[in-house]
Amino acid sequence: MTTEIFQRARRPEQKLQRQDAILGAARDLALRDGVRNVSLADIAARVGIHKSALLRYFETREQIFLELTAEAWRDWARDLHARLDAAAPGSAPLVADVFARSFSDRPLMCDLIAHTPLNLERNVSPDAVRRYKRTSLGMVNEAAALVQRVLPELTLAECTEFVATLASLAGSLWQIANPGPVLAELYASDPALAQACVDLMPRLRRTAEILLAGLITSRNPRSAWEPG
Amino acid sequence: MTTEIFQRARRPEQKLQRQDAILGAARDLALRDGVRNVSLADIAARVGIHKSALLRYFETREQIFLELTAEAWRDWARDLHARLDAAAPGSAPLVADVFARSFSDRPLMCDLIAHTPLNLERNVSPDAVRRYKRTSLGMVNEAAALVQRVLPELTLAECTEFVATLASLAGSLWQIANPGPVLAELYASDPALAQACVDLMPRLRRTAEILLAGLITSRNPRSAWEPG
Repeated sequence: MTTEIFQRARRPEQKLQRQDAILGAARDLALRDGVRNVSLADIAARVGIHKSALLRYFETREQIFLELTAEAWRDWARDLHARLDAAAPGSAPLVADVFARSFSDRPLMCDLIAHTPLNLERNVSPDAVRRYKRTSLGMVNEAAALVQRVLPELTLAECTEFVATLASLAGSLWQIANPGPVLAELYASDPALAQACVDLMPRLRRTAEILLAGLITSRNPRSAWEPG
Repeated sequence: MTTEIFQRARRPEQKLQRQDAILGAARDLALRDGVRNVSLADIAARVGIHKSALLRYFETREQIFLELTAEAWRDWARDLHARLDAAAPGSAPLVADVFARSFSDRPLMCDLIAHTPLNLERNVSPDAVRRYKRTSLGMVNEAAALVQRVLPELTLAECTEFVATLASLAGSLWQIANPGPVLAELYASDPALAQACVDLMPRLRRTAEILLAGLITSRNPRSAWEPG
């Protein structure tokens, strides 16, 4: 919570502290209300500064959220290392489980991923989008290398395909799994329509398993993946 | 193009005609500028009526686009019937190709699919969202039945999974494949970052092939899907 009123930040460490306060406020609000509902004015109000003061630190609302997305990718890659660095080779179900969890444990990251190509990347400067892309690509490539270490029958390109596809799906499935109040009420009252809702973690894990099975089959039909 | 100025519509057929004009204007503008950039005021201006007159026909901007999404699902299902009704059973590559094309030939549908859970379903009445969900679910189920007829080794639930996953991906990959001007310029000038861009049709076809291979392998490891 950062509701105290700041004086104008003058020293470098004060500026960094204020930048962190802005990112923290955006994070709290987006987790509570969803990324789509958080405006620049909401963030400024929560930090306790004027909108014009906030714009000395970030270009646009979208740049703030793009910064949070980059931070989420880095945190996500650290978590994958922690869970997969010591994993024995060969287990596709383990990779599917770890990746599904890595997204479903990060609701804000999933929400942000859906907004990134749709909104966030479209309202920032070339520098901001370049910095963001370097981070997201770097983290996807790092995650792909981790997959390849556990599943060496896949090429690095195939592992990148797996990671990028699952990340895209995590973004759109999270939106479906977290409907607004009107749709949530409809799902509760109409079982036939509830079929359209999604339970994020099992759906992601199952899709990850199918993708890995498909990738492995098309490379090596008699691999260890065959049941039994 | 519907730029003529309407008088107030009084007879039922005039009302239907005006509703069509509104949908047509929204369709033209969304195809030209992208769904995210089209406001209610833009649509009203293109039809040549006042915003308040438009709101006699549709609740919100989002209801107009949800109506276009429902229309897109129906048109998409008709196209799948035309391409698959006479297909010989057994060809997963054919199913992958037809489904990838069914989305990549429909840029407005892809754009709308990404906006649906994120925005469109969150700003309409319960009645409007119920009507939309019945249509989209109905069309997904119809498409799944078509897949099962060609690939009878899959269950209907697996076919639904395939169709729903590919549709979600079509939405998010379309956004990535159609970046804004800043990002497009960056891709053109920085080959390392261009790796993050996507060519929609081949990517969707490849993912469809992987999904079908994965689904078929996990059901029937010694099926006709094995190469050779």
